[in-house]
Amino acid sequence: MPLWCKGSQYGGAALRKRWLVEKSVFFKVKTCEEVLKLLKTFEPVGEERVPLAQAIDHVLSRDIVSPADLPGFSRSSMDGYAIMAKDSFGATESLPALLEVVGEVKMGEIPKVKGGPSRAIRIATGGMLPDGTDGVVMVEYCHLLDENTLEVSRAISPQENVIAPDDDYRKGSVVLSQGIRLRAQDLGALAGLGIVEVPVYKKPRVAIISTGDEVVPAEQSPGPGQVRDINSYTLGAFCEVLGAEPVILGLCGDNFDQLRALVEKGLDTADTVWLSGGSSVGKRDLTIEVFESFEQMEVLVHGISISPGKPTIIARLNPCAVFGLPGHTASAMVVAEVFLKPFLSRISGQRAPERKIEAELWAKLSRNIESAGGRDDYVRVKLYEKDGGWVAEPIFGKSGLISTLVEADGLVRVDRNTEGLYAGDKVKVLLFRH
Amino acid sequence: MPLWCKGSQYGGAALRKRWLVEKSVFFKVKTCEEVLKLLKTFEPVGEERVPLAQAIDHVLSRDIVSPADLPGFSRSSMDGYAIMAKDSFGATESLPALLEVVGEVKMGEIPKVKGGPSRAIRIATGGMLPDGTDGVVMVEYCHLLDENTLEVSRAISPQENVIAPDDDYRKGSVVLSQGIRLRAQDLGALAGLGIVEVPVYKKPRVAIISTGDEVVPAEQSPGPGQVRDINSYTLGAFCEVLGAEPVILGLCGDNFDQLRALVEKGLDTADTVWLSGGSSVGKRDLTIEVFESFEQMEVLVHGISISPGKPTIIARLNPCAVFGLPGHTASAMVVAEVFLKPFLSRISGQRAPERKIEAELWAKLSRNIESAGGRDDYVRVKLYEKDGGWVAEPIFGKSGLISTLVEADGLVRVDRNTEGLYAGDKVKVLLFRH
Repeated sequence: MPLWCKGSQYGGAALRKRWLVEKSVFFKVKTCEEVLKLLKTFEPVGEERVPLAQAIDHVLSRDIVSPADLPGFSRSSMDGYAIMAKDSFGATESLPALLEVVGEVKMGEIPKVKGGPSRAIRIATGGMLPDGTDGVVMVEYCHLLDENTLEVSRAISPQENVIAPDDDYRKGSVVLSQGIRLRAQDLGALAGLGIVEVPVYKKPRVAIISTGDEVVPAEQSPGPGQVRDINSYTLGAFCEVLGAEPVILGLCGDNFDQLRALVEKGLDTADTVWLSGGSSVGKRDLTIEVFESFEQMEVLVHGISISPGKPTIIARLNPCAVFGLPGHTASAMVVAEVFLKPFLSRISGQRAPERKIEAELWAKLSRNIESAGGRDDYVRVKLYEKDGGWVAEPIFGKSGLISTLVEADGLVRVDRNTEGLYAGDKVKVLLFRH
Repeated sequence: MPLWCKGSQYGGAALRKRWLVEKSVFFKVKTCEEVLKLLKTFEPVGEERVPLAQAIDHVLSRDIVSPADLPGFSRSSMDGYAIMAKDSFGATESLPALLEVVGEVKMGEIPKVKGGPSRAIRIATGGMLPDGTDGVVMVEYCHLLDENTLEVSRAISPQENVIAPDDDYRKGSVVLSQGIRLRAQDLGALAGLGIVEVPVYKKPRVAIISTGDEVVPAEQSPGPGQVRDINSYTLGAFCEVLGAEPVILGLCGDNFDQLRALVEKGLDTADTVWLSGGSSVGKRDLTIEVFESFEQMEVLVHGISISPGKPTIIARLNPCAVFGLPGHTASAMVVAEVFLKPFLSRISGQRAPERKIEAELWAKLSRNIESAGGRDDYVRVKLYEKDGGWVAEPIFGKSGLISTLVEADGLVRVDRNTEGLYAGDKVKVLLFRH
């Protein structure tokens, strides 16, 4: 059931009174699922090519197809002797096979000698298998009787201790798929194939604005009633950690013209604009007013059934998403974790699953969490290990505090259709990136 | 029981034969625990100060103590009216309290009006509480009868909806501890306290050398028997992901003078030197020879009871650690995950726990894994979700292949004192960083 209400934190019985005393717009609070679905309508930013050595953490914009077999030739995976496997058939310690050593394989070169019946060629790990041989017998099963005579005390099968020319990748096979975020070993595969320029999505640029008459720069001493700008730093770092590029546009008073100019600057220079500040009704009204002053800007979301973070506004001016986030750092960070993370993942071109394995963890809840219902509560938790598993300890505190967020390792969601969670419940923890 | 053996992959019955035919040094293979303990004897690199906006992911080198109370003044956490709480005692919807509205608090300013008995002052979220008031009644429990007359229909307690001056941090309290890796919210706390230059450990510089006569640069087409350099890219990216700075020194043939010169250059320019290449006995001997040619360089480890990764060499030339890693990328990466990760964490100044929460995950094993015993096996696994938990699917393949590593999400350890693991076992997965 959609929940109609007026103002962000008002509902139920109080509603009747409130709408008599305050001018405000009616709006429909959206569920988390509705918002996440809306965010999927935004498209990845453009593509570019980056040198392989800088490609770590970039998102691949094309499938990578192997241009050749890898390693491309038969390689020994052991120190030993390259032989014809059948020469070793039946060999044992008590009845070894006798072979003639006819030469040695040099690393990185075509072997100068060929194998053949009863011939053995010395080879090191990584060496190229000589023609006429089809296996490598490990050096510990070999015994030189003299310089040229080798005793082999164990049988090998054909291809034993050999890496075949296409064992790693076959020409034409898909090595890496579009939409993956490149890891160290992925760069390794690209290097192996000689792909030294990589097609990737551009890193999204995020314009960040902190608003509020009470906010001063972090390097300044706040006067009475003033606070330092925190959100430029938390949201900026949040972007960097997720591979986006923050563009800090600075502070803005609660002033229409100034705010409009900064949002415009953000739209001009970045792929998305995030402004934070103000959970009060007046500030939300100002934000909406600014958003609506842009022709063709469409307000998509005005309030989300989430706590903390309800007074969040999302608008679209194609192809940009513009976010009005709560001013409280903890609320803004919860909105960032729940919505901006999958949003950034989306416009970064990263393919589903949007949540990476390492971003979540199962834990046992240490105590009951009550919930008001009708909204998804995101509760900060601290994690500790116990009996070979994780325990999530809820941290309670006013949402205006940053200290609770500093203490926390992640968030646990209490679904709006439950009345809470119980001690001992198995819960999924959304991890803050360390 | 320490295991004495000769050469890296030789032991048991084969040993008796082998030492007759090959010249090699005797050495003692160390267990993983012994190696990890040794790596703890290296010290963090130096300290520096970085601007707050660049401090994300750096490791704090000093405790941060709050220079003041935060937020430093009493703040409203709601939109409403600041009052004396006792004026509301007993108020209900049917019997509201009547108060006089005497003014409004402007954001970021000292309130111009004072509270007192029967006085109410309008205040928005984040506003400074006026003198003479001790709580805020939310706007939805307020009803203006006329411009100056307010009906309050609910009682509040003193300090209700108020953030006290030291609710976030008390002056002198420890906000962040030395040795933590800074996250977005940690930067937020520093910003809130006005700490815009942060004492951190320097990022370790890692010199990386790929050796082997068969290795050519990634941008070059390898001839028959040659392979492209992979390890410079995988190890370089591995460093970057962990907040270290790779210094790629390039390729080196299997040549004493060239290798010695590059190691020397690495020692001069970096905090640790990692060379990879060659799992053959000859190459290991060359590496050892080069290490021992440095006066005062002490070889600490010559072989580890781990698979893959056994032929690993570790030396110390104070304060530098020098690593000789296997040439096979998959082996080198396992050694990196198991040893170089905690090593980098250590010299980065990061405090225990060395393993971050997000670096590990519990999963159920999908099938049996056999183990040879006598060494810790690290098996690559792919993860998938099933019934609200993770399943780890082992990937088997030759250790010379990079494709198995690209497929994998992490590693599962099979302890050397077990004979293997069974399908359904709960296992800890060491996650590759995405």
